[in-house]
Amino acid sequence: MKDTRTARRMDEIQPFHVMQLLARARALEAEGRDIVHMEIGEPDFTAPEPVVQAGVKALQSGQTHYTPATGLPELKLAIAGFYRERYGVEVSPGRIVITPGASGALLLAVGVLLEAGEDLLMADPGYPCNRNFARFVEGKGRLLPVNADNGYQLSLADVELAWDENSGAVLLASPSNPTGTLVAEEEMAAIAEFVAAKQGHLIVDEIYHGLIYDVEAQTALAVTDEAFVINSFSKYFNMTGWRLGWMVVPEEYVPSVDKLAQNLFLAAPTPAQHAALAAFDPKTMKILEQRRLEYQRRRDYLLPALRELGFEIPVTPHGAFYIYADCSKFSDDSTELSRRLLEEAGVAVTPGIDFGHHRANEHLRFAYTTSLERLQEGVRRLGRFLGA
Amino acid sequence: MKDTRTARRMDEIQPFHVMQLLARARALEAEGRDIVHMEIGEPDFTAPEPVVQAGVKALQSGQTHYTPATGLPELKLAIAGFYRERYGVEVSPGRIVITPGASGALLLAVGVLLEAGEDLLMADPGYPCNRNFARFVEGKGRLLPVNADNGYQLSLADVELAWDENSGAVLLASPSNPTGTLVAEEEMAAIAEFVAAKQGHLIVDEIYHGLIYDVEAQTALAVTDEAFVINSFSKYFNMTGWRLGWMVVPEEYVPSVDKLAQNLFLAAPTPAQHAALAAFDPKTMKILEQRRLEYQRRRDYLLPALRELGFEIPVTPHGAFYIYADCSKFSDDSTELSRRLLEEAGVAVTPGIDFGHHRANEHLRFAYTTSLERLQEGVRRLGRFLGA
Repeated sequence: MKDTRTARRMDEIQPFHVMQLLARARALEAEGRDIVHMEIGEPDFTAPEPVVQAGVKALQSGQTHYTPATGLPELKLAIAGFYRERYGVEVSPGRIVITPGASGALLLAVGVLLEAGEDLLMADPGYPCNRNFARFVEGKGRLLPVNADNGYQLSLADVELAWDENSGAVLLASPSNPTGTLVAEEEMAAIAEFVAAKQGHLIVDEIYHGLIYDVEAQTALAVTDEAFVINSFSKYFNMTGWRLGWMVVPEEYVPSVDKLAQNLFLAAPTPAQHAALAAFDPKTMKILEQRRLEYQRRRDYLLPALRELGFEIPVTPHGAFYIYADCSKFSDDSTELSRRLLEEAGVAVTPGIDFGHHRANEHLRFAYTTSLERLQEGVRRLGRFLGA
Repeated sequence: MKDTRTARRMDEIQPFHVMQLLARARALEAEGRDIVHMEIGEPDFTAPEPVVQAGVKALQSGQTHYTPATGLPELKLAIAGFYRERYGVEVSPGRIVITPGASGALLLAVGVLLEAGEDLLMADPGYPCNRNFARFVEGKGRLLPVNADNGYQLSLADVELAWDENSGAVLLASPSNPTGTLVAEEEMAAIAEFVAAKQGHLIVDEIYHGLIYDVEAQTALAVTDEAFVINSFSKYFNMTGWRLGWMVVPEEYVPSVDKLAQNLFLAAPTPAQHAALAAFDPKTMKILEQRRLEYQRRRDYLLPALRELGFEIPVTPHGAFYIYADCSKFSDDSTELSRRLLEEAGVAVTPGIDFGHHRANEHLRFAYTTSLERLQEGVRRLGRFLGA
């Protein structure tokens, strides 16, 4: 194959390692092997029936033209209502920007906020794309190691220590992918205050909000009006492939976000926007609550089962559908371990390397996006393989 | 309202002026005024029935999970078949990347190809977002004036003259927005050869391909394997709000484009991809051909009518659904003229300023994306207003 002449940024943007693993898992399945999938960061549920019906109605009635760049006004109203009812927080609908997935929101946020050459501070481990978004606009993701002692989240002290003249913004994810842990409300408020005082920006990823167990979680919007707060219809609302998310931005940034959205996307997918109008119906909400309870049952099974096998999970994850497990008892090379687990035990899990550098080789991410029965089968296989 | 602290790139990224005009038109309509819309760059048709049905089936059967980042393999096959049947060109399906609209394809192309600080050479007038995509990745759109004498397209001579050590890539659009003109096949081949010899890149925007009148138009893929060729389901296939496009890339660039797509989008909308499988059905194609003939009828009416009113249109547009008209007989400020046409005549058209700088104040873009009857009404109003 010929050489390529790609822009330098491409040398630093990595593919997800899990994609290779997934491709290999599919290949094994094509050969007749049974694989337990605990690597997939996507709900196994599809959109609730009222959402599907609203989508069908939109298609059949030809509601498929472009919407305004920041989205359907009635969907913004519905989201504002959701913040009011669920969180007791008033958000002006005009501050809500509908995006093509949370990915679109992240692209808008770094595009509007991050200067070329500036750092976006974020936790390591964290969602792998985040640093690549920063790199894409010629900024840089600065990965700050976080540990179990702080729930795998950045503290005010971490941010204070790291902030320097090159820092442009801080990204917090609550709940976090891969750790499923939350940022405490007071810590969020303190970091928001610090960043604002530094004339920096705060971006908060809340795409796993809603998938919360045992505890109450408040949105960052309750403690600050100055953050860019990102959410998604993919995870809690089970609308992954529809590609729809949203972002709440400070009012004065709306015109900038609007013009960038016009240029980069024109608008988010129209059928998905009409379908999402049904996402806040009481009927949909009831379905989503049942599914949340199902995720909770899975976590409540998988967490002690993994601990019993010898994985160290010092922080109980209260959100998302991930368990981030220290596998150093079994291997100091989690990538090789994940490869062997797939090939020899028929269990697919994601190696730590997909989420950063800090102790990545000692960690695996388990996703409980498959049925309890399959998780049980996965644990049996892990037990046999690890000799536990 | 508070001050914003946005990244410098935002100072140079402009909103579409037509958006304000459209908003004003909607406001006038809300007051009861009748407005003839000749400003909208979106087909008035919605997706053909077989496409809608395929979309509905995808929703109802839960085919709404993420697809691979570069799209559904069967859709790539269908697109490869389309190139074979319509253009007689063999394109390996593996070179086809399905994107969230042509916008997503442009973002991938500049992201993979354009270094920070490099120029993307393009025709002025041209599609306004193109230079903003370049700016977004810290490159620069370099606008090269084009005139009627060369059909408002870059020639090899233009590119040779402009190419310097700062040049990274050339963007050609055929048919062009706003001029509706095509790049001749030999010129495309010559420019492709020149750019390759300079170790540069060629991006070709073919999103209005299919909407071609009187002439035959060949894809750039017939003359070069080295270009990044962008197409869309929005215009010819009438699937605007679905947000689906594609890009054919040289084989050796597929891994880079794949990893960037993973990071920036995850994937294009899944329902749209399934729906688009029906876009190449003979039944759909028959509907699209009828619609193409309808656009042709509109152009065949509007073009002489505008000329008769006194607009100069030296080059007959053979594609898209636009007429780019010299209005200097009436005004040397086309933005002010378009404002007055809206307010006083009830006709919305797009001022030249949305497409660049070169003689922008002497031009208006007319879109024939409304019925023949409405176009006739628009022409009557223009006639009264202009005293023609």
